[in-house]
Parts: sequence; structure tokens; C-alpha cells
Amino acid sequence: MPQLRQNPVTGRWVAIATERAKRPTSFTRAAGVAVPAASTCPFCYGNESMTPPEVMAYRPTGTAENTEGWEVRVVPNLYPAFGPANGEPTVATVGMYQTMNGAGVHEVIVSSPLHAADISELPTEKVRRIVDMYIDRYNANRNNPSVQYLLLINNHGKEAGASLEHPHSQLFGIPLVPSEVEDELAGIQRYRNEQGRCVYCDVNANEEKDGERIIAKNEWFLTFAPFASRTPFEASIVPRWHAPRFEEMNPDQREAFANALHDLLTRFRVGLNDPPLNFFIHTAPCHADGNVDYHWHLELLPKLAIAAGFELGSGVMINVATPESAAEFLRNVDLSGESQPIAVPSGHH
Amino acid sequence: MPQLRQNPVTGRWVAIATERAKRPTSFTRAAGVAVPAASTCPFCYGNESMTPPEVMAYRPTGTAENTEGWEVRVVPNLYPAFGPANGEPTVATVGMYQTMNGAGVHEVIVSSPLHAADISELPTEKVRRIVDMYIDRYNANRNNPSVQYLLLINNHGKEAGASLEHPHSQLFGIPLVPSEVEDELAGIQRYRNEQGRCVYCDVNANEEKDGERIIAKNEWFLTFAPFASRTPFEASIVPRWHAPRFEEMNPDQREAFANALHDLLTRFRVGLNDPPLNFFIHTAPCHADGNVDYHWHLELLPKLAIAAGFELGSGVMINVATPESAAEFLRNVDLSGESQPIAVPSGHH
Repeated sequence: MPQLRQNPVTGRWVAIATERAKRPTSFTRAAGVAVPAASTCPFCYGNESMTPPEVMAYRPTGTAENTEGWEVRVVPNLYPAFGPANGEPTVATVGMYQTMNGAGVHEVIVSSPLHAADISELPTEKVRRIVDMYIDRYNANRNNPSVQYLLLINNHGKEAGASLEHPHSQLFGIPLVPSEVEDELAGIQRYRNEQGRCVYCDVNANEEKDGERIIAKNEWFLTFAPFASRTPFEASIVPRWHAPRFEEMNPDQREAFANALHDLLTRFRVGLNDPPLNFFIHTAPCHADGNVDYHWHLELLPKLAIAAGFELGSGVMINVATPESAAEFLRNVDLSGESQPIAVPSGHH
Repeated sequence: MPQLRQNPVTGRWVAIATERAKRPTSFTRAAGVAVPAASTCPFCYGNESMTPPEVMAYRPTGTAENTEGWEVRVVPNLYPAFGPANGEPTVATVGMYQTMNGAGVHEVIVSSPLHAADISELPTEKVRRIVDMYIDRYNANRNNPSVQYLLLINNHGKEAGASLEHPHSQLFGIPLVPSEVEDELAGIQRYRNEQGRCVYCDVNANEEKDGERIIAKNEWFLTFAPFASRTPFEASIVPRWHAPRFEEMNPDQREAFANALHDLLTRFRVGLNDPPLNFFIHTAPCHADGNVDYHWHLELLPKLAIAAGFELGSGVMINVATPESAAEFLRNVDLSGESQPIAVPSGHH
């Protein structure tokens, strides 16, 4: 029977309606994009001059900036949605409307020199380096007075909005706190007022106890299908300790997060035939004070459904798979063939 | 320069960033879906037994229910997201979560017997009949105690979520007022408190005076590209009189609305090569009292962009075209070849 479920944080509703499921094949299409020759990819070794100059790279001593040899490389987005060239953030009035200039930052974090290896295909120690770079770029930008919020995102596959195949993430620094985060902050405050606890902490406790929506867990993180999943196979990675900021993880926690992310992405690639997907990290707003009541987390949404007229007009997503069945499927993916990740250049060559 | 723009009703922001525009070809792909043989389409004449029994049809005297001869036909959705079979709407608690059963209605309104003619290809007097049916179905369902909101939507083209090509709309009766409408109601109230006027009325006056975002107008309706358009070529049809309910239009207004809808859809088909698109109608909640402060309207969103990680994580859409350029383009579409719409069976045969 179709069921509406309420997101306990934002109060938004979703409809779980499995009768409307599409054919199983729509769950297993590959993210595949034609692999261009390395000579044309701006993120491959030797093509460093095809991007704007790098703002940061992990590279061995003796290699020059904007040359090959790097492990993880960060460059400004060539087509920035937000950027320092747009000046200081200023609200302007146009008749009855409000505008703001697109001040901020928009960086590209290239995952590795390997054109065809996504995060799940890298060794976990390389994923840890990506996580370190995420945090380095958060910290490099969080005191920027033009930036109110830093949003880290990853688009995997053309259908999920990736325009270049070479795996990369993007860090957006934007001049406002976006509505999705405002809604979470408000929901956390409301729950705190009513229950005296953090809603994310309570969700974690509830999911650990219940178990049927758990996909994986480690010492520091819980990976599960949210009760009110908006799309088939939606997944969250949530810290098992209460912390407002992704960028303040200690080394143990970073290691555990890299492992959790690698594990989840591997389950998608192996179990669901590498579907197009998006993930993003929600952390506290840059300039929120030290005791801000927030609980950072990662959300992953595979691109397995179309937001059509009903979803656009209502804001209520119709999800054709239960999170319980999605979690069971992802929990049981056979990872035994994944013990030998492909080799990656060491950065020394 | 990229610019953020605030929706004056909901307070949500969008980013207009034309530098990120995709190639022009992405604006002109056709909605085309393979046309199946009439023998397999449940919405074609002669196949009435392939759907659940009709709940209403405009058909000439002497034709039997569930046989051919109808002009516009309404049937229950075979795969309902919401339906009377799901009982009364009841909120239940599952641990810390809330659920509600998917009570309500989910009807399909088949536009005409013609398999390949969309609304814009029908004569305007036939579009008027569709509008009459929309209103008849609103009124037939608005006193249903299981239904808090009636949302009428139309998905055109496979990429926009249409699963059957034969043109049809869908009426969803759902057991809650959806967040998109709640946000509009709150925005109207806030603006009323601050300015003493209706924000939609003020937007109309502003757009009429300014003119650069106007696509078309007639005696009763204004068609324009919203200032904070979320996607390229987003368009709204807004009544030029203050009225909370679509379903309470008088005959002159219905006629004008049918003409405005036909005109807008024709501009998309002719000017943009029939792109996939969604439209929906926002009217006041069913059980709101008679003096509810609302201003009904139609919103149309072509499927010309992908909501990727940034949009999902922030709720801020990045739009690669300005509404001013989109409106200018749609305003200037050459409609001179459209004077002879194709013939439609009269319903008498």
C-alpha cells in the first residue's frame, strides 16, 4: 500500500509507492560516458595547462605546480557559477525583486590522475587523500567573507550532471545559507525544543536498533537508507558522534569516513551496475558560531527517477522502492571480488 | 555576471549563470517517443476496456460508457500513487517517524482521442473542453474528506516523466497540503503583512509595466517568464484578477485560459522543437475557507536541465538562461504557420 513518510528533520513528506516501480532494468543502467583520449582531458597528466592554474595539489617534492606528478589536484572551475570575479556579495533591489551577485568560489577537486577510475575504484588510502583535500579546501575557504556556505558535491555519470568523465568533486562557496540547510537547521532546533536531543543522533540510535535500513557501519559512521528516502537507493553516511562540522574530523574519523564512502560507492558500482548518482556533504554554515546545533552528514541520491509534474508541483517525491528493500539489497552486495583495487600512480615517477 | 535571484513568494533563491549554458542543441531536442500502434494504446478509441472503467467522459448521446465516441475521458490511474483503496488518511507513528497511508485519488484525463496530437495541436475549442474537464474533476473531488489538496499536472515527453505517449493530464488528490503550496501560502501571508497587497497581484503589475519578461497576454491572463526562473524557459500563466481557485473560473475566464495555455504550449512546440516539459496548476487547498488568501496559477517547467549535486544539496537551482532572453525568444516565435490546427473527431461518428 502506498505510504507517505515524513522527513523528521525538515518535516517534508515523501510518498513510497512501489506499485509504480519501473522495470528493473531502469535500476541498472550504467553511468557510462565515452572515454575521450587522454590528450583531450583537462584533468589527465600532461594537460595541466588546459585548466586555470591550480590553487592546491598534493604533489611530491620536486614536481612543479601545474605539471604532472600530483595525487589530488584543485583548480578553479572554468565556468564558475560563483566566483571572486563577481565581487563582494551585495543584495540589490530590482523593482519588487531582490538579487545578489554570484560572489563566492567554485573549485574542482580532481580525484586522481586516473581518467577512468572513480572513487570506489581507488585504494582506500587514496580516498583518504581526497577526504584530506576536501577538508583542506573547506578550511582554506571558510573564512572568506563573501562565502556564507560551503557545499561539497560529486556528480557521477552524465545523467547525474557530470560534464567531464574524469572523476572530480566540486566545492561551491556561496553567499547565502541555502534553503536545504536552513530547513535542516530549523528542524534540528524544533526537535531540540520538543525532545531535548539532536534529531540526527536520535535517527542514528533508532536505525542502529531497528537495523533494517542499515547498509554498513564502522567505528565512527553509520550508512543507511533514510526512512523517508526520496529516490530508490537513497543513502546517508552520518557520524555516530554529535559534531557540527565535517571539516573538524580528527585523523581516525577521516580514515573511517574515507572507508565508509569507498564502501558505499563500491556497493553502488558492483550491486547496481554503476548508476549515475550525486552526493553532497552538509556541514554547518561557515560563520556559524562554535556551539551551532548541527550534525554534519553525507547524502547520496542515485539518478534513478525523474522529478515530473507531481514532484515539481508538490515538493513530494514519489519513490517506487522502499528504503528497507534498498538497504537489504545494498547490505548484501557481494564485495568479495573487490579485494584488489587497481594500481594508482604514487605521485613519484 | 552570475546573479542570485530571490523568489518573492517563497523566499527561495536561484542562480542565473549563463556562462554555464550547454550547447544550444540541448535546448531543442524533441520530446519524441515512438508512437505505438493504436491497438496497444489504452487511451485510443476502441481500447476503452484496457483502462479501469471511466469515471467521467464528454460523449454524445447514444454512445455507451467505456466505448469510443468520447471527446475527453477520465479514468482512474492503473498504478495509483494515491487511491481510495488505501482507506482513510491516518497518521501513524513508527518509532520516531510519522507515516500516513496513501489515501486520495489519482485520475488520468485523456486529452482527446488523437494519439499523436498534444494540447497545442488541438483546436482551441477542444482545449476549452479539456479545461472544462479539469474543473469538473476538481469539483467532483474537492469535498472528498480524504483529500486535502488537488494537484493537476501534465507530463509531456518521456524525459519529463510521461510513460504513455497519448496526451493526458493527471489529477492527484492527496491527504496533505504539499510543501510547495504551504510555502506559497506562507509567502503570500508574509507579503500581505508587510505590504498590504497580494504578492502575485504585485508581480503581475510589475511584469506588465516592465514588459521584458512577458511572453503573451489576453484579457484575463498574463504569461511570463518568472524573474527567478529555475530552469531555462520556465513560464507562468497567472490570472490578472485576484482569485484563489482555478476551479471557480467563469465561462469567459475558462475560454481565455484555454487560449493562453494553447498559445504557450504552441510557442514551446514551434519555437523550441517540442521539448519535454511539465506543467501543473496551483489552486487553494480544497478545504480552505472561502476567503483564503491565495492567487491560483499555472507553472510550466521544460525539462532542459539536470538537477545535479549542487541543486539537490542546496535547493538553489542554477539556471543557464536569463528569463529575459527566454521571454524574448518565446514572445517572438512565429505562429503564422499555426492557423490550421488538425481535425479532431467531433464525438459524433
